[in-house]
Amino acid sequence: MQVKNKIILALDLNDLKTVNQLLGDVSEHIDTVKIGYPLVLAEGLRSISIIKEEYGFNIIADFKVADIPETNQKIADLTFSAGADAVIVHGFVGEDSVQACLQTARNHDREVFLLTEMSHPGAELFMQKVSLEIASMGIDMGITNFVAPSTKLVRLEKIRKIVSDDSFIISPGVGVQGGNPAQTLKYADSLIIGRSIYTAENPQKTLQSIIDSIEL
Amino acid sequence: MQVKNKIILALDLNDLKTVNQLLGDVSEHIDTVKIGYPLVLAEGLRSISIIKEEYGFNIIADFKVADIPETNQKIADLTFSAGADAVIVHGFVGEDSVQACLQTARNHDREVFLLTEMSHPGAELFMQKVSLEIASMGIDMGITNFVAPSTKLVRLEKIRKIVSDDSFIISPGVGVQGGNPAQTLKYADSLIIGRSIYTAENPQKTLQSIIDSIEL
Repeated sequence: MQVKNKIILALDLNDLKTVNQLLGDVSEHIDTVKIGYPLVLAEGLRSISIIKEEYGFNIIADFKVADIPETNQKIADLTFSAGADAVIVHGFVGEDSVQACLQTARNHDREVFLLTEMSHPGAELFMQKVSLEIASMGIDMGITNFVAPSTKLVRLEKIRKIVSDDSFIISPGVGVQGGNPAQTLKYADSLIIGRSIYTAENPQKTLQSIIDSIEL
Repeated sequence: MQVKNKIILALDLNDLKTVNQLLGDVSEHIDTVKIGYPLVLAEGLRSISIIKEEYGFNIIADFKVADIPETNQKIADLTFSAGADAVIVHGFVGEDSVQACLQTARNHDREVFLLTEMSHPGAELFMQKVSLEIASMGIDMGITNFVAPSTKLVRLEKIRKIVSDDSFIISPGVGVQGGNPAQTLKYADSLIIGRSIYTAENPQKTLQSIIDSIEL
């Protein structure tokens, strides 16, 4: 996936009106957005179709899909049919569940991002203990897109080593959660930024300043 | 949660029309259904509201919620607002993520089911290794509702021991996946059954025969 200015805007918002206002402000600077369940539950899966049609952005559906293979396949199929370019899938549910999404993505000529690890405190309990194994599993499966947080760069660096420079890593955690944009891009290919932008008084200006801080 | 005939019907279907036909056939025998993302993505979160209004059933939203606390809170809030009585939450993402759903459930006077383990082959890789720990975490958090599969009764028995008889366990895996109804109910309080019923030539008759096979 090609991501303009190496920034993916996380649309962690619950209504399309607010999303549209935000996108109107920043659409010159980005071409890729991440949409999660809150927006889709509030406004329907049509949110993806509407944003795709209106802006032509790459859309990553951050559904953290984590069900049995049969259900993962259905979720991925509906999501790609609505116009998503990629879906984010949990690795801890195992290879067959991830494979169901991967095969569905290939059928639609779309992509899967494998979530290796998360940055909230609770992730230390179970997820972080297996995140490197999850990354390895992804590589063995032929996956080339990964999600790994920017809040602990030493861990991000380890995941980069496992997935190699041939893989594409997108990284949340920059901004409000404390991750540094330029430092993160030593190991990640693109940043996922949400709150720092959409809670800013001037989202366009904030986005521009983040872009300026990155040596592209 | 009180579940009529100890059977929860899993509505793993993608359209409300088929769901309505099925529910018309079986509504005398059940009062609790499980709805997952495929139906909600295809037909909107209004599916929950419509089924709740039409049949008055207990609705368990099987969203296997597995995100950071902030997002889990939003997902749970929207789901309860739509009329769900309970939401199923992954324990793998850690205590804070589960707590976000639990607190939201309490605010709505609704319930959380903690998913301790799954039965597909891929679950052996990471999930089954920590399923007992996840069950313990849930007990420590004051959770009293759990999901654990019926395909390996020796594992279900272990989870029952951890959560004690004070907890309510619902168990998928009976029927197509091979679990035995009466055997499972030695350790679980209710069975989650989907495919065996909705793929049957006569769902009502199939459901009746399952009910007959259980010593209630």
